[in-house]
Amino acid sequence: MAVTIRDVAKKAGVSRACVSKYLNNIPYVSKKTKRKIENAIKVLNYTPNIMARNLTRKKSNVITLIIEDITNPYFPEIVEGIENLADSLGYRILLINLKNKNEKAIDNYLKYILEYRADGILSTSGNISQKYLDSFQTEKYPIVLISVIIPNIDLDYVIIDNYQGAYLMTKYLIGLNHKRIAHITGDLNMQDAKDRFSGYKAALKDAGIKKEYTEKSDYSEKGGYLAAKKLVSLPKRPTAIFCASDYTAFGAINLINEAGLDVPGDISIAGFGNINFSSLSFVNLTTVDEPRMQLGEIALKILIDKINSKEEKKATQKIILEPRVIIRGTTKHL
Amino acid sequence: MAVTIRDVAKKAGVSRACVSKYLNNIPYVSKKTKRKIENAIKVLNYTPNIMARNLTRKKSNVITLIIEDITNPYFPEIVEGIENLADSLGYRILLINLKNKNEKAIDNYLKYILEYRADGILSTSGNISQKYLDSFQTEKYPIVLISVIIPNIDLDYVIIDNYQGAYLMTKYLIGLNHKRIAHITGDLNMQDAKDRFSGYKAALKDAGIKKEYTEKSDYSEKGGYLAAKKLVSLPKRPTAIFCASDYTAFGAINLINEAGLDVPGDISIAGFGNINFSSLSFVNLTTVDEPRMQLGEIALKILIDKINSKEEKKATQKIILEPRVIIRGTTKHL
Repeated sequence: MAVTIRDVAKKAGVSRACVSKYLNNIPYVSKKTKRKIENAIKVLNYTPNIMARNLTRKKSNVITLIIEDITNPYFPEIVEGIENLADSLGYRILLINLKNKNEKAIDNYLKYILEYRADGILSTSGNISQKYLDSFQTEKYPIVLISVIIPNIDLDYVIIDNYQGAYLMTKYLIGLNHKRIAHITGDLNMQDAKDRFSGYKAALKDAGIKKEYTEKSDYSEKGGYLAAKKLVSLPKRPTAIFCASDYTAFGAINLINEAGLDVPGDISIAGFGNINFSSLSFVNLTTVDEPRMQLGEIALKILIDKINSKEEKKATQKIILEPRVIIRGTTKHL
Repeated sequence: MAVTIRDVAKKAGVSRACVSKYLNNIPYVSKKTKRKIENAIKVLNYTPNIMARNLTRKKSNVITLIIEDITNPYFPEIVEGIENLADSLGYRILLINLKNKNEKAIDNYLKYILEYRADGILSTSGNISQKYLDSFQTEKYPIVLISVIIPNIDLDYVIIDNYQGAYLMTKYLIGLNHKRIAHITGDLNMQDAKDRFSGYKAALKDAGIKKEYTEKSDYSEKGGYLAAKKLVSLPKRPTAIFCASDYTAFGAINLINEAGLDVPGDISIAGFGNINFSSLSFVNLTTVDEPRMQLGEIALKILIDKINSKEEKKATQKIILEPRVIIRGTTKHL
C-alpha cells in the first residue's frame, strides 16, 4: 500500500499539517522537525503525491510551456499566441526550451515545475519520459500536447493532420511532373514526423512512383542543410525536395544556393508549417499551412478547462485541424 | 513613517506570522483572519515591502525574462542562450512577451511576478513603468537590462555600442559612394533606437552629407515594410537604406521586391543585429553583428551574482560590447 502523509507524520512524531508545510516549502518548520520529517520520508521511502499536494494548495496561475527549439521560428509564433491569450486569462508562462537538453535535464525540470506548483503543462514536444507521462496520467495532472502526439497514451492534443498535409504536398509535386521527389524527414522517433513521412510515401505509392529518396533529419535549419547536401550530391539527384518543416527547407535552399544551383530552376523545394518568414518575397516558400496561433489557443483553452475541473474526469480531447497547401515560388513545373 | 507588517498585525488583532502567511499566499489562514487582515491593510493603506518579504522566503530559483517581441527572431536567440545557461545553473525562466500589451497589463505582470517570488528580472525591453523602476531600486530588487538602456536610472545593463554600430554601418554605406542614405529607426522612445539614429546622423554629418531620410518605425518586419513603402515612393528615392534591425530590413527587402525593384541592384539594404537568418544565402544581409548569446549570458551572470548577494550593495555594472560590420550581399557600390 502507498505510503501517505499520515504515515510520515506518525513516523516523525509530528502533525500532518507540519509535514504538509515541509512538503510545500513553507517556512515555520523548525530545523529539528525538518530533520525528523526528512528521516521519516527516507525510512518509509515516501514519494509525495503531486495531485494530493496540489489539492491542498492555491492555484499558481502558472502554466509551463515546453518548446522543442525556440530558435526555430515555428515555435515563437506558437508562444506568442499562447502567451497573449494566457495573459488575458490571468495565467503566466514558465518556458522550457528542450534543445540541447538530455532526458535527465528534462526530468529535473519536470520535477521542479511540479514542485513549483505549475497548474498544468502545454507541450510542443513529445520528448517527455515515460516516467513523467505515467505520473501525469495517474495523478490527473493537466497536460495538453500541441502539434505533437505521443502514441499509446491517452493525452489531449491539438494537431494538424500531418499525414494528410504531407500527402497533399507530395501529390502537388507529382502533379508538377516531378518523378524524383525526396523527403527530408523530422525526428522519426516522433509521431508527427512519422506521419508526414507516411503521407509522403503513400502519395508516391498512389502515383505508382517506386523510387523514394529519404534523408532522416530533424526540423532544424542545419538538419535541412546537411540532408540537402547528401541529396544534391547523388548521381541522379532529385528534382524536388519536400522538407518536413519550413525551417528545414530554409537550410536546404541555403545549401542548394551555395552549391551554385537554383531554386526552383534546378530543384523545387516545399516546406511544412507556413511560418511568417515563408511568405516574405525573398523566401516565398511553397508549404503546408499549419495555423499555429489557433493550435496554441485551442490547446490553452482545453488546458485551462482541465485545470478548473481537476477533480472530475474530463474526456480526452483530440483535435485534428485540416492542412492546406500554399503554393508559392519555390516549386515549378518540370 | 512607513506602515509595517507589525502595524497591520496590531490593527487586525492577529500575529505577525499570520500576516506574513497571508502576504505569502500560504494556506492555514482562516477566512475570518483573512478578512481582518485585508481590512487592516485597507485602513492603513499598507504596501508590502517586496524585499523584506523575499528575505523571509526561500529563493524561488525563477527568473523573469521580459521579451519585447518573441516573433522577432532577434529575441529567441537571446532566450535560447539565457535559458540554457539558467538551466545549467538551476534557474527557471518565466517569460513575458510585451508585444500587444499595454502599460497596465505590464504593471499587472510585474506585480504578479514579484508576489510569485521570482528572484530577479532580465529585461530586453525598456518598456517598464517608472513606478516599478523606482520600486526595484528602492527595494534593491535585482534587475539587469539586456540590449537596452533606461536613462536617468542606475540599473545594470549589457549592451552593444549602438551609436558606434550605426556610425560604422552608415560610414560603410558612404564609402560605397551612396549619398542618399535613409534610416528606418526603431522606437525613438527607447535609448538604443535613439543611439542608432544618432550614429547614423553623425556619420552623415562627418561626411558632409546634409540630406537625411528618416522613417520612424519600430524593430518589426511590418514596420520595415511600411517605412520602405514611403521611402521607395519618394521622387528622389534613397539608394541605400540602413534599417535599425535585421527584422526591419527583412520587411524593407520584402517591400522593395514587391515594388519590382532589386536589392542591391536598385537599393542597398543594411540591418542591425546579425540574427541567424541573415546569414542564409537567400537573405545574405549586410548587418551589424550583435553577439546575442554573449549579451544574454553576461546579463544572467550579473543577475545571479546580484541575487546571491542581495544584502550587500553591489556596484552597478554597465557592460558595452564592441559592434562589428558584417558585409554580405544586400549592399553594393554605386
